[in-house]
Amino acid sequence: MSSAAKVAIVAGVGPGTGAAVARAFSKIGYSIALLARREESLKPVQDEITAAGGQAISFPTDISDAESVKKTFQELSQKLPGPVEVAVFNASGSFIKKDFLELDPQDLNKSLRVSAMGAFIFAQAALRQLEKTGKGTLIFTGATASLKGSSGFAAFAPAKFATRALAQSLAREYGPKGIHVAHCIVDGIIDTPMTRQRVGDFKEGEVIDPNDIAATYVSLHQQSPSCWTHELDIRPAKEKW
Amino acid sequence: MSSAAKVAIVAGVGPGTGAAVARAFSKIGYSIALLARREESLKPVQDEITAAGGQAISFPTDISDAESVKKTFQELSQKLPGPVEVAVFNASGSFIKKDFLELDPQDLNKSLRVSAMGAFIFAQAALRQLEKTGKGTLIFTGATASLKGSSGFAAFAPAKFATRALAQSLAREYGPKGIHVAHCIVDGIIDTPMTRQRVGDFKEGEVIDPNDIAATYVSLHQQSPSCWTHELDIRPAKEKW
Amino acid sequence: MSSAAKVAIVAGVGPGTGAAVARAFSKIGYSIALLARREESLKPVQDEITAAGGQAISFPTDISDAESVKKTFQELSQKLPGPVEVAVFNASGSFIKKDFLELDPQDLNKSLRVSAMGAFIFAQAALRQLEKTGKGTLIFTGATASLKGSSGFAAFAPAKFATRALAQSLAREYGPKGIHVAHCIVDGIIDTPMTRQRVGDFKEGEVIDPNDIAATYVSLHQQSPSCWTHELDIRPAKEKW
Amino acid sequence: MSSAAKVAIVAGVGPGTGAAVARAFSKIGYSIALLARREESLKPVQDEITAAGGQAISFPTDISDAESVKKTFQELSQKLPGPVEVAVFNASGSFIKKDFLELDPQDLNKSLRVSAMGAFIFAQAALRQLEKTGKGTLIFTGATASLKGSSGFAAFAPAKFATRALAQSLAREYGPKGIHVAHCIVDGIIDTPMTRQRVGDFKEGEVIDPNDIAATYVSLHQQSPSCWTHELDIRPAKEKW
Repeated sequence: MSSAAKVAIVAGVGPGTGAAVARAFSKIGYSIALLARREESLKPVQDEITAAGGQAISFPTDISDAESVKKTFQELSQKLPGPVEVAVFNASGSFIKKDFLELDPQDLNKSLRVSAMGAFIFAQAALRQLEKTGKGTLIFTGATASLKGSSGFAAFAPAKFATRALAQSLAREYGPKGIHVAHCIVDGIIDTPMTRQRVGDFKEGEVIDPNDIAATYVSLHQQSPSCWTHELDIRPAKEKW
Repeated sequence: MSSAAKVAIVAGVGPGTGAAVARAFSKIGYSIALLARREESLKPVQDEITAAGGQAISFPTDISDAESVKKTFQELSQKLPGPVEVAVFNASGSFIKKDFLELDPQDLNKSLRVSAMGAFIFAQAALRQLEKTGKGTLIFTGATASLKGSSGFAAFAPAKFATRALAQSLAREYGPKGIHVAHCIVDGIIDTPMTRQRVGDFKEGEVIDPNDIAATYVSLHQQSPSCWTHELDIRPAKEKW
Repeated sequence: MSSAAKVAIVAGVGPGTGAAVARAFSKIGYSIALLARREESLKPVQDEITAAGGQAISFPTDISDAESVKKTFQELSQKLPGPVEVAVFNASGSFIKKDFLELDPQDLNKSLRVSAMGAFIFAQAALRQLEKTGKGTLIFTGATASLKGSSGFAAFAPAKFATRALAQSLAREYGPKGIHVAHCIVDGIIDTPMTRQRVGDFKEGEVIDPNDIAATYVSLHQQSPSCWTHELDIRPAKEKW
Repeated sequence: MSSAAKVAIVAGVGPGTGAAVARAFSKIGYSIALLARREESLKPVQDEITAAGGQAISFPTDISDAESVKKTFQELSQKLPGPVEVAVFNASGSFIKKDFLELDPQDLNKSLRVSAMGAFIFAQAALRQLEKTGKGTLIFTGATASLKGSSGFAAFAPAKFATRALAQSLAREYGPKGIHVAHCIVDGIIDTPMTRQRVGDFKEGEVIDPNDIAATYVSLHQQSPSCWTHELDIRPAKEKW
């Protein structure tokens, strides 16, 4: 694969959705920039993609820190000089559910740092790249809590609502400029090593296979400018909602 | 193509979205049952699909009449004996926008007959087929007026809201049974001979190519039961919303 | 009370919300026109209001029949010649919850006849009165199923969605003309003789007192044109949602 | 008025909505705690309420600073020892509308500090008071941007969405505990000295009189626990929406 291959940037790469999205765009020919705070989250995904014949480079990044993101995008432009066509914001503050008066304002702050500030900083950096060709796709991963503030979610839901507001604002600003901005509401448990360890084995249609989320993201990117989806929900067949 | 090929049923076939959806499912190997009130809406689509090597049969049907739909499904089972895997409800009452006091209750009735009653009757017949294999996809076409009641829309929006309510109710009942029910909000002008005649030529991203809607419907059908979308919007890049 | 007192029309009067709304507007000086299909639903409410010194007249009406509604409004104009300032559409098709394939299209039809067609016909008649003074309030009673189509609700939810679409369309058309159109989502069990018989006694905050709904409707009517609510939810304190 | 009068706390007091809400609750017998960052915002309101025979005390507070809010609530408990029954969060980061790439992450941060963090910190302090009696009302002021992210709103809308998520989460947690949490979407221009200076004179129904917002807040507080509104919109009669 030439170093000028088209580039997909995935922020928020762990063993679940982020890795799956990276693999999926690699399989259709993209060079992948992998962003996450910790290098150990990135390395296995990079290795897997490289072993499969793709190109992926790890960029340990604090997504909520403008300087860190700036530095990453500078390096990224050098190491992956092809046009950026896809940017996926899949990061999220840690899930937290607690009675309101047991939460600390710092719990909210941690959520906002990633889901609001991180999304904002990443989107600015990504859109500066996407604007160069005047096309491409920016996708944000949302959750049930993007639409509904439930009891116990006073630190988590505000941050997820904030990501959604950002995505909507950007879709309305950038659609006419030829850039597709989408927000995907993941409504269900994602099948990851962590959830599997916690819950045990799942039957078909009870949990979300991250590879299927990735397939949906590829579909979103492949939509024609005549027919863009801004928001969609995804959930397993058996999910109650 | 064997007569036992998998079947896709498309209700509401005209020169726009319905025809495009029929063509798209034909291209991936489905035998197509084409439903519309008037035979002359169906014939050109049937001819086109047949000429391209596919199988399509026309069933002139009054979708809001339980007897007519029953008769169609009986014939359909004989002529297209393969398992029904896809059913698309793309019919809609005529668009009507008028000051409220200039509307006649019959205007509402006409809208409801198709978008509420027709959707209901078609969904019952389709789900009886889909239940046989316990899988498959039922898609409803919605519109901007499915989400928003604007001034002048007192006859049109209630009917489109009704379709959406039906789709939601069915998604929650049939998801756990393995059948995927989706509702697609088409938010923009669809590029058809009729709209082109009315508005003139369009630039890219100003109107929706019905083939792109069809591609989205195929994507919905191809989603895994781990990751189903119930509702999504689609609009052209340049649409204001 | 003079026969030229301001008039409030309440459609859908039974022992619950309709009666409470009628009483509440009577207490603040309105003459009340009571509409329901059956005279025996109206008589006790009329007697109660009259006994309390108010004015109320019963108009047995099939709200889904344009002729019946027309006749009622003609009589009403003669018997209650004061200006109509308030119109409340509180009628609803019978609640029905069933597996989709056990529903008959006639179940949907019954729901639509009241919640879609009845609401439309009533709103036309009411707005013709409200337009005479260019002010006043038209309120529609909604339900949980106005916003959400749940499993089993394929006949009920489409009709309630339809009412909401109508209310939205009218609010956008009539707001600028000085007429306030509101839609109230009643999300919880209403405390009526019927529900009390079915469920037994309730604790505070578990069910909705219809008199409290009525107080909310009076508040809506009393809002200034500088500050109108179109939609609000109401539920008991202890309701899960 | 005795020093043990019931207390209403209003955060975000300027010449518009905050002042009007304070006056309205003073008129129905509440002692008012006035919170805003700058003393000069509070003083005129305090003076006006005092001159009218009410009780109001100013507490200059940085609502996004937990220490500042803690100190205010300590002082407040001493100076206004009556039970807290009403808390209104009316603060908001400055309105900002800009092309996304001209925004600075600090613009987002400023919005979040007030509308997300400030709302959170204030709600914790207020609910600790409201829990003492197990009743009362907590109201958040929202805006059009609480529901919709428009072009140019990438710093403002995320923060307003966040407030809404918080309000929803708290309503679901505190409703069953007897405390009413509401969120009011103010969809229109509020008539303040500032907007009047900018836009000139208004006709009736074109802008929102803050006193009418206050009347709506009083209505919300007066709802019975059988019938609470969580969310409502308000807009002027002539507003396009």
